[in-house]
This record gives sequence, C-alpha cells and structure tokens, in this order.
Amino acid sequence: MTAPHPFDPLTPTEISTAATVVRSRYSDQDVNFRVITLKEPPKNEMITFLDQEHRKLPAPWTPIRCARVEIMIRVAPCENELHELHVDLTNNSIVRHQVLKGKHSYIDSGYMKEVETACMADQKVQDEITKLDLPPGASVVVEPWAYATDGQNDMSKRVTMCWFYLRLLEHQDANYYAYPLDICAEISEDLKITKVYRLPSSPDEQVHSEPRPFDRQKIHSTTASEYHPDLRPSPRASTKSYQVVQPEGPSFKIRGNQLNWEKWSFRVGFNYREGLTLHDIRYDGRSLFYRLSLAEMFVPYGDPRSPYPRKAAFDLGNDGAGINANNLKLGCDCLGTIKYFDAWHNTRSGEPMKLPNVVCCHEQDDGILWKHTNFRTGHAVVTRARILVLQTIITVSNYEYIFAFHFCQDASIFYEVRATGILSTVPTNFGQNTKIPYGTIVAPGVLAPYHQHLFCLRIDPAVDGLKNSVSIEESIPMRLDDDNPFGVGYVTKSHYVENEGGFDLDFTRARTFKFVNEAKINPVTNTAVGFKLMPFYSQMLLADRGSFHAKRSEYGQHAVWVTRYRDDDFFPSGRYTMQSMGGEGIASAIQNRSDSGNQDSVRNSDVVVWHTFGSTHNPRIEDWPVMPNEKMMVGLKPVNFFLGNPGLDVAPSTQEKNQSVLYTKEDTSSSCCTSRL
Amino acid sequence: MTAPHPFDPLTPTEISTAATVVRSRYSDQDVNFRVITLKEPPKNEMITFLDQEHRKLPAPWTPIRCARVEIMIRVAPCENELHELHVDLTNNSIVRHQVLKGKHSYIDSGYMKEVETACMADQKVQDEITKLDLPPGASVVVEPWAYATDGQNDMSKRVTMCWFYLRLLEHQDANYYAYPLDICAEISEDLKITKVYRLPSSPDEQVHSEPRPFDRQKIHSTTASEYHPDLRPSPRASTKSYQVVQPEGPSFKIRGNQLNWEKWSFRVGFNYREGLTLHDIRYDGRSLFYRLSLAEMFVPYGDPRSPYPRKAAFDLGNDGAGINANNLKLGCDCLGTIKYFDAWHNTRSGEPMKLPNVVCCHEQDDGILWKHTNFRTGHAVVTRARILVLQTIITVSNYEYIFAFHFCQDASIFYEVRATGILSTVPTNFGQNTKIPYGTIVAPGVLAPYHQHLFCLRIDPAVDGLKNSVSIEESIPMRLDDDNPFGVGYVTKSHYVENEGGFDLDFTRARTFKFVNEAKINPVTNTAVGFKLMPFYSQMLLADRGSFHAKRSEYGQHAVWVTRYRDDDFFPSGRYTMQSMGGEGIASAIQNRSDSGNQDSVRNSDVVVWHTFGSTHNPRIEDWPVMPNEKMMVGLKPVNFFLGNPGLDVAPSTQEKNQSVLYTKEDTSSSCCTSRL
Repeated sequence: MTAPHPFDPLTPTEISTAATVVRSRYSDQDVNFRVITLKEPPKNEMITFLDQEHRKLPAPWTPIRCARVEIMIRVAPCENELHELHVDLTNNSIVRHQVLKGKHSYIDSGYMKEVETACMADQKVQDEITKLDLPPGASVVVEPWAYATDGQNDMSKRVTMCWFYLRLLEHQDANYYAYPLDICAEISEDLKITKVYRLPSSPDEQVHSEPRPFDRQKIHSTTASEYHPDLRPSPRASTKSYQVVQPEGPSFKIRGNQLNWEKWSFRVGFNYREGLTLHDIRYDGRSLFYRLSLAEMFVPYGDPRSPYPRKAAFDLGNDGAGINANNLKLGCDCLGTIKYFDAWHNTRSGEPMKLPNVVCCHEQDDGILWKHTNFRTGHAVVTRARILVLQTIITVSNYEYIFAFHFCQDASIFYEVRATGILSTVPTNFGQNTKIPYGTIVAPGVLAPYHQHLFCLRIDPAVDGLKNSVSIEESIPMRLDDDNPFGVGYVTKSHYVENEGGFDLDFTRARTFKFVNEAKINPVTNTAVGFKLMPFYSQMLLADRGSFHAKRSEYGQHAVWVTRYRDDDFFPSGRYTMQSMGGEGIASAIQNRSDSGNQDSVRNSDVVVWHTFGSTHNPRIEDWPVMPNEKMMVGLKPVNFFLGNPGLDVAPSTQEKNQSVLYTKEDTSSSCCTSRL
Repeated sequence: MTAPHPFDPLTPTEISTAATVVRSRYSDQDVNFRVITLKEPPKNEMITFLDQEHRKLPAPWTPIRCARVEIMIRVAPCENELHELHVDLTNNSIVRHQVLKGKHSYIDSGYMKEVETACMADQKVQDEITKLDLPPGASVVVEPWAYATDGQNDMSKRVTMCWFYLRLLEHQDANYYAYPLDICAEISEDLKITKVYRLPSSPDEQVHSEPRPFDRQKIHSTTASEYHPDLRPSPRASTKSYQVVQPEGPSFKIRGNQLNWEKWSFRVGFNYREGLTLHDIRYDGRSLFYRLSLAEMFVPYGDPRSPYPRKAAFDLGNDGAGINANNLKLGCDCLGTIKYFDAWHNTRSGEPMKLPNVVCCHEQDDGILWKHTNFRTGHAVVTRARILVLQTIITVSNYEYIFAFHFCQDASIFYEVRATGILSTVPTNFGQNTKIPYGTIVAPGVLAPYHQHLFCLRIDPAVDGLKNSVSIEESIPMRLDDDNPFGVGYVTKSHYVENEGGFDLDFTRARTFKFVNEAKINPVTNTAVGFKLMPFYSQMLLADRGSFHAKRSEYGQHAVWVTRYRDDDFFPSGRYTMQSMGGEGIASAIQNRSDSGNQDSVRNSDVVVWHTFGSTHNPRIEDWPVMPNEKMMVGLKPVNFFLGNPGLDVAPSTQEKNQSVLYTKEDTSSSCCTSRL
C-alpha cells in the first residue's frame, strides 16, 4: 500500500495511531475522543510538493502527516475539559497540546441520547406530560438541541434545550414534527433538568404557565402530515422509469482520492466537520483553486418569543457536515454509473469508524453546451454538456441538505445546495385567525417559524499560481458627451481589493468579484487571467447587530469576504461555535489584525474569498410535511483565463451515440385530455 | 378531423383561407404576406369556454377563429405600405383593416438577401473591398442588420446596415465572424447603397476615412477561431456515451397541442414572433396561469462609436423567435424519448409553410425532489425529481438562444434561457495595448463589444381564477424592544400593488412578488392562495434614459411590471419595434392610461406581470469562437396555494426502477493520475 497523499484524510491505521499516542498521555483518565482528523499540511510545504508532483518529479520531501485530536476529559463529577492535540504521525509524538477552557466541542450524539433519557426520566417533565392528557397509544419524542447563546445561562457549561413532540402513530417513522407539544426543558451538562416550562401559544403571549391539555383538534389527517410510504396512500403511478445508461462506462478515472475527468484533476477530501472538501483543482494542467469547501452554515430562527431565541444552529460547527453525512444508496441518490467514497471517523474510545458512501460521484447530461447554426448554410453544430457531480447529503435532525460540486466542460464549477427535509415546528393555538408575523401555520396547531439558512463557501483560489488579487468590476454607463453622443455607451470600471474586509453584492451595477493573477496577462485580451464568482443573491443576517446571533455569525453581515490565507483558518465563525459568545468570527479576526497593525495587503497575495449566501426561509405550506428541494447555486467561471472556449473540443452530439427515441404515439383515449368540444 | 381548439395555432388550411380572403381584396396588387397568424380569442370568451371544457360540458359557443395578417403593399416604385387585417375564418371576411403609416413589419429574410446582393454589386463597396487587398481565396460576407434608430435617418423608410466579414477558408461554414472587416454600408429601402464608410479602429478614433489594407497579422490559427468540426482537430475522445432509457415510455400524454404530465395540463401554442407559448396551465385541475410567453428581447451594444449605436436588436419584435426557431434534431438537442411539435408559417405569397420540429418535449431527471432520514431509525426516504421540458432554440444571425419551460412535480415552473452561438464582432487595431473600455479582444484584431441581453417574460396569472392581486413582501427585522428582547425576531411585511407600474428587485430585503387570489383563503395557513416569482437578478438597461435605445425598450427600466390585462397586449416595446422611435412601450402605455384617467386599480383584477431579466454581457475570451451556454433562470412557485407539498405522492426512488451501476474499477494505469510519490 502506497503512503497516503498529503491531502488524503487519515487512514484507519493513522486514526488508531493518533489515539494510541494520545491515550498514552492520559493513561489514568477517561478520554472521550471527539475528533481524530487530518491536520492539513502547511500550504508553503504543499506548494513545493504539488509543483514536483505535477511535473512528475520526486518531491524533495513529503509534509509530515499530522492528526488534530479533540478530546473531552472529565475533570470533576460535573466538569469536562476540552483538549486539543496535534499528533505527529511520523514520529508518534504530541507536537501541540492545548486546554480550551470554556470552549465546547461539537455535538456528541451519545451525550444527546443521555439527555433524552434523563429528560424523560425526570419527574417534573413527567408531571407536565401527564397534564397534557395525551391520546392513548401516542408516545412523546424528545428532540435535544444545542443551546444558542442568549445571555441567560453560563455558557462555559454545556446546556441543552429539549423540545417535545408527539409520535401519534405507532410506526417508528411517523412524523412527530406534526405534533409539537407546548412543553420545553433545559438540561445542564450533568444531565439535571434545570427548568421545565410551557411554550407561548399565540403572538401576544410570551411563555405561558397554565397547564393545558393537548388539543385533540390538532390531530390532522395523516395524508397531510406523513411522508413515509408505509403511512401514505399509494403514490402516483404516472411517473415512468427513467434510466441512465453508460455503455462505455463513465468518463472519469479515479485512483484513491485523485479524480480525473474531462481535463479536470483534483483530489477529494473529507472531514467530520466540512464533509466534502476539494483540493488542488486544475484544468488542463493549470492550477485554478487550492481548496474549495463549505466552511459554515448558520440557521437562526426569527420567532422572538422566549425560549425560541435559543434556536440557532451552526450545522457545520455544532453538528458537522461530515459526521452527519448520509450513507448514499445506489439507485436512490444518484443515477448512472456511480463511484462512492467512504470516509473514516472515530469512536468515543478512539477506534476508527467507517462512514460508508458519504460522497457519490457521477456524470449528468446538462443539456446543450454550445450550439451554432450557420443561417446561410443551415448547418447546425450542437454539443451537449456533460457534468461531473460530487454530491454529499447531510441530515441535521429535521432538515437535510444536498451539497454538490458540478464540474463543467467549459472549465466552470458550480456549487449547488438543495435544502429539503422537515421544517422545525412549534405549537400554536388551534383555529386562531390572527396572522402570526414570524411563521406560517402548516397544519392545525403547528407553526413553522421563519428562519434563515446562511451558508459560507470558502474559495481558496490559485489562479495560475498562489499570488492572486481580487478585483471588483462594475458596468457603468458613459456620460452623455462627445465620446458618447447617442447615450448608448457603457464601460467596465474595476478596482483591486487592497485590504481584508467584507463586501456587498450589487446586481444593479453588475458588480463582479474576480480572482485574478496580475502577473499573468492573457496574450490575446491583454488582461490579467482570472476567474469570477457568480454569487447567489441573498438577504444577509436579519438578526440585530447587537444580538448573540449576529455576534456569533459574523460572516452573515456581508456576501463576500476577502482575507489573506493562513494555515488552519477555515471557519468564518471560529473553530468552536458550540455555545460561543461571539467575537471569534471573520469580522473580528480582520478587525483584530487591523487594530494590531498586522494587516498586510491582500493584493498579489495568497487570498481567500468567502461567499455568504442562503435563503430567508419563510415557510410555505408546500414545504410540509417534507420540503421539495429549494436550490441555491453559486458559480466560478473563467474570465480571460484561457485562449478560447475550453469546451470547444467537445465532440458534437450524434444520434448514433445518444440513441434518443422519437415519440410518435398520439393519445386518443378520452382519459388523457380534457374534452375537445 | 376535429375543429381546432381556440388556442391552437392556425392550421395550414386556415392560413390558406386567410390568404385567399386577403388576396381577393388586393386583386390587382402584389401582396407580400409577412404574417398570417392566429389572433388569439378574447379572454372573456375563453373563460366561459375553458370553464365548460374543464367540467367536460359542451361550450355554449366556440370563439370565432380569427387570423391576424400583415402584408406589405408596394404603393410606389420605392414605397411600401404595411397593412394589418383581421380575417374572420368562420365567415371568410375581413373584420378589420388598418394601414400602418411609418410602421415596419419584422425582418424579411428574402429582402435581406436582396440587400446582400445589392451591396456586393455596388461599385463603391467593391472599390472599398479592393482597397482592403484581401488574401487570395478569401471571400467577403455581408451581414445585413436591422437599423437601430439613432436619429440620423428618416425611419419611415426602411434602412439596413451592412457589416462585412471575411470567410478566409473555402469551407462554407468557416467562421467569418473571426475576420470582421473595417468597412460598413448603409442601404435604403429601394436597395441603394447610400453610404459606405470605414469603422473606427481604436478607442480614440471615431469613424476613420483612410483606406488601409487588411492586416495579415490578424489571420489567426483556425484552431482558435473555427467551431465547425470539419475545420477543427479531432475532438476530445474522453467523453463516453450517456443515454437516457425510458423502458415504459414517457410519462406525458399528448393529444394535438394538449399536454398532460404528472398532474399538469396545458396547451402548447406557437407563433412566428414569440415562438413557444403556453396556455391554460393547470395543476391537478386548478388554474394557475392563463398564458406564459417570452414577450420581447432587446440586445443593445455598448460601443459608443458611430455607427455602432445602430446595433441594437429586438430579437422578437424585429427577428421573430418563431420564424427563427431551429429544426431540432433527434439525438442532438434533447435526450430520451422526445415529442416534437411542428409549426406553420406562411410564404410571401400566402401559402402555408411548415416549420418542422420547432419545439421538443421530453423528460429529465432533476436530482432529488425531497429526502428525509429519520435519525432515530436511520430510515431514509428519497424521491427523485422528474421534470418536463419544453424547449425551443432560435438562431438570430450570430447568436442562439435556448428557451425552455421546466414543469416540476412540486407544482413549480422554471423558465430557463441559455445564450450561446457566436459573439458579434467588430474590427480593431492589431497589437494595441490600450485597454478598450467597452469590449474584449477575443482574437487578434477582433473586438467583441460589451452588450446587454434583456428578456421580458410575460406572466398572465390565473391563480384559482382570473381576479388576482400582486403583493410585494419583504422580510424585515423587528425593532429591539420588549417584544423582541434578544434581537432575533423578524417579520414579513407586504402590501398590494394598487396601480399599474414598474418595480425593482431588492434581495437585501428578500423582496418577493406574489400573485395571489385574495378571495381564496388557504384553510390551513389563513392566507390568500398564491404563486411567487423567483426573479433572475439582473442589471437593467445601461443606455441613457434619453437615448433611442431607452425610449424603444422601456421595459428595460424595471425588473417587474404590473399591468391590467387587455386583449392583444403582448409586447412591452410595442407591436412594431422595427426602426421604432420609442414611446410605444409598457411605460408609455401605463403613463398614457394614467394621464387620461383610464387607469383602473390592478388589485383583485385580471393582472399581467412582466419580468425583465438578462445579462450584461461583457464578453470573455472563453465565449470565443462559440460561446458555452450562459444560463438564466426564472421561477414560479406556489406559496400557500396547496395544502402541502404537491410532490409528496411521488414514489420513492428504487434501484429496481433506476438501475444504477456501481463503479468499482480503480484505475491503476500510470496515465490516469499525476504520480503518487
């Protein structure tokens, strides 16, 4: 077996080795291994390595393999300490050790199960449930949530919020989100129920205290509230089979984590937090991006009534896109010929744990790539577009997100996010006619509160080399004067970003963010070679600037952030988001560097661009009981990087290859169409 | 044969009948039939008809079939007159006749060929060509363009601009746009060359007069400038076959122009100008839209130097999306099982003329429709999305546009535009290093000027009935106060549009335009049933407000226009755009109605919504010599219209049906990947 590539995730053996090294340091303690993951090699080492690799020359050296390990140590009966260690896997030694006082690691699903059990075992909780007078046969489901900082508790200790739902049917996959109960509990780190209370039932009401039995009128038809096929009428039969056949096999070639497809080459990475990462992305041998990843995701809820301000999830920092990645199933999540990638995580005791089929790789037809008909000869040349898709799907309690990188034959890359799954619901009065200004009633007594999904895509460009600049270009009308006598002229004006900072989009000026290499001039256009961001236009964070939501999710202030590359600087809300107090995000980091005079120019430097996008999700009833996907798309396209259309050499489409079928059947049955009179 | 449905385009027989009726009136004159097309029936008649039709009851009457006919009559040796007539096809009578003084019909391709011939036969032109000293074997191609009004000529007569290109290679499909010549001619209606001049060669220069021979340094490699496979090296062989197989046939049912698919029903229309139109669009029997169509498209160029302000094309009004629609080829333009629709136009002499295969209809897989994994049981339910695509492709000289309506199982509709084809080019000095502020040099001596593509999608909603309102909703943070103590709350605020007008987008407020039926309240959400527009965020027209470009394309001022429905009000730049002087567009019409006190409220009325979108296309060299498609997407989605996810009953995906293939081959050849060291 060959040695892993520096970008490869840790192998199971490396995970075990790291655990062994760490365990030896804590021989007498109960170590809860939260993470054993690759600490990615320093970029300055990788540059030399990659240069040699792409020239097919031996590397002068290989960067040391290093693991980053997070452990929880019980230091007192009710006290845990988070430690972070870096383990040199060549020398089996700990090269860094840090005790992170007051910080928390990401959500521990084992602990969350303990929370559920403790919650249900609590007498106060049981008393409240009794008062609800629930229908016989129904069972209560406890949904524990990470606590979003609201200033009401000491955040150095872990606090968990428990929401309650009713599983009305016996079936284990019944949709309990359809019956939110109006009780709620707060649990301390040592599993004590510190507070049980009732939820507000109308807009005018904050938390109410009167016990009130479950309203049986809220029991709606399962047709409207269930999504599982066992609990549904027969599905529509009208959708006929649709299969993708690739008789010559796929067009990609894969060795380990190295992927080659249609002039593209890159390496597939994966970690517990970001999930899928991509490294060393090149087209036709030319470097484009050093790394692409989803860096963070924040989902704050807009219902102002206590305790709902505690609902705000960092789905990467708190939950982990990797650890929550679905085991993708053949024939379900993708069509055609599919390569699956597995990943490795670790158990609580430090053993390697497989995460099977967390990434699927497949091709799709994407309609027409380019076409031209010479109207003088009538000759058409049409070329169909093939794309390569790398997809990963995560489940975060009620919601799912489908993340996919699309590689295109014209050297563009798209990043698609689809939101699906089930809305997070809260109880509300039944039959009330008042409009609830921060939510939608999706079923009797069920409110789906407004919320936002804010994603941050981290783009580490390496456009023909590491030294890049970011330019902001706008299309501006010319003045009406002698140079523009007819008033039709317009020009582009652009300036380079000189300092780190956050920037806004403006489609009214066709504002365009480009990553260019000022030292590499396109010989035809006479302009610097570059790529441009095709942003997804989105409303930024709505929460008040002074709120904990805003302080914790600083990247939500602006759509584009530009920073200088620093090793390990991957997270725009900080590495430890769990119960964070704010001030650890991208805006504070930039401000701190500026205040301390450490801010270097980002021009002609190793820049990183962070794109914040997402949706202000004011639910529709059509999102219920399971939401049809909501698509968001971000693009990266070459701008005067090549010498022409990179997809010009894609072969024209032919029926011989594509084997399409002509539909000739005219339906004459009376059932088909409305009557023709 | 059954009688045509009122929305069906004219049959060949009806075209002949209309021509016969018109000819009888002009028995002694040379009639040039420009258009014989359906005059769509009045909406008030159609409503009763459709109501009865959908109840499968006999209609009390069928609207009279009526043809709208445009003819050109030669009234003097150099003078033509445009007449418009309405022909009642039941009674074979002319019910309306209008002489349109100073107006022009759309581009006459036969006449344009005469222009080319006249241009090349002209001695002044030949003298200029001789001065160019062109390479032997090369031939000159004349590209006539409709004249964009610039105030320099009498627009009551037709004037044509001729641009000149060099076909360097003998091959008839050689890309002559790669060699723009710096001469230009202006031709009068009676085919006289009124002016021959040279084009500017640098930004500092307006039209120059010095004769200058063709610069042979501009002859670049055909690899960089040719797109036709005959003139290209062998294409890449890496793209393997990809076929769509539908063993049970497609899921759609078609009878005539009536299409039923996955609870959708609608009728397919087509005319010479708008191309594909859709009528009476319903989902699960409920009315959604009365009509959807692309209403106009404007392509103004941003190069201010004379004579370039004359380059601005109305691709619908001047050229016609229907008459320029491609004859789509099996296995090229679509995959899977494909139904083609033909259309009928007319010859100059009034005979029916078939436009074969102008619309293709097929299904596509569109990834995951919805998914949820119950994290407690690990059970995943995943449903793939199928979409129905109705696609038409047009060629307008150098450019092509791919227009497609996508129908989705979640009751949403998307309208996708892809721009492809060849950039319109002009000559520029070779080897100059000055940056040209309104264009991109895509090949030696070849400038691709900046330009805009502004589309207007006409949406005629009929959300659960004809009386609809347009609401504008925004997501607004709550004030930090006792009702919002944590600063996390936000609400939606909306107001109804009361008067006709133009409106702007604002993603920073998540501004959303909805079409709702105030009289139909969703029983669960307690809100009016509706659909929302998912706009494509675009820069509006850049030309000066006082320019002819702006006056002629008023719809380019705002992204959303709301008007009250009027029969035959289909065109936001007026019906006769050819050499129009402005003031006939949507803004003027609204202003005129307001000035004359004829503006009724648009609330609870029969409203029409017009969405302006497009691209500020500052060419990249990657768009050369043929442009990889640039996608633009507009959506229409239900908002609290149904009682839940309309795609909830789509069957979950199974491998049994989808027959995906697991990729297991690990490539070990050294050619595959970069070396692993």
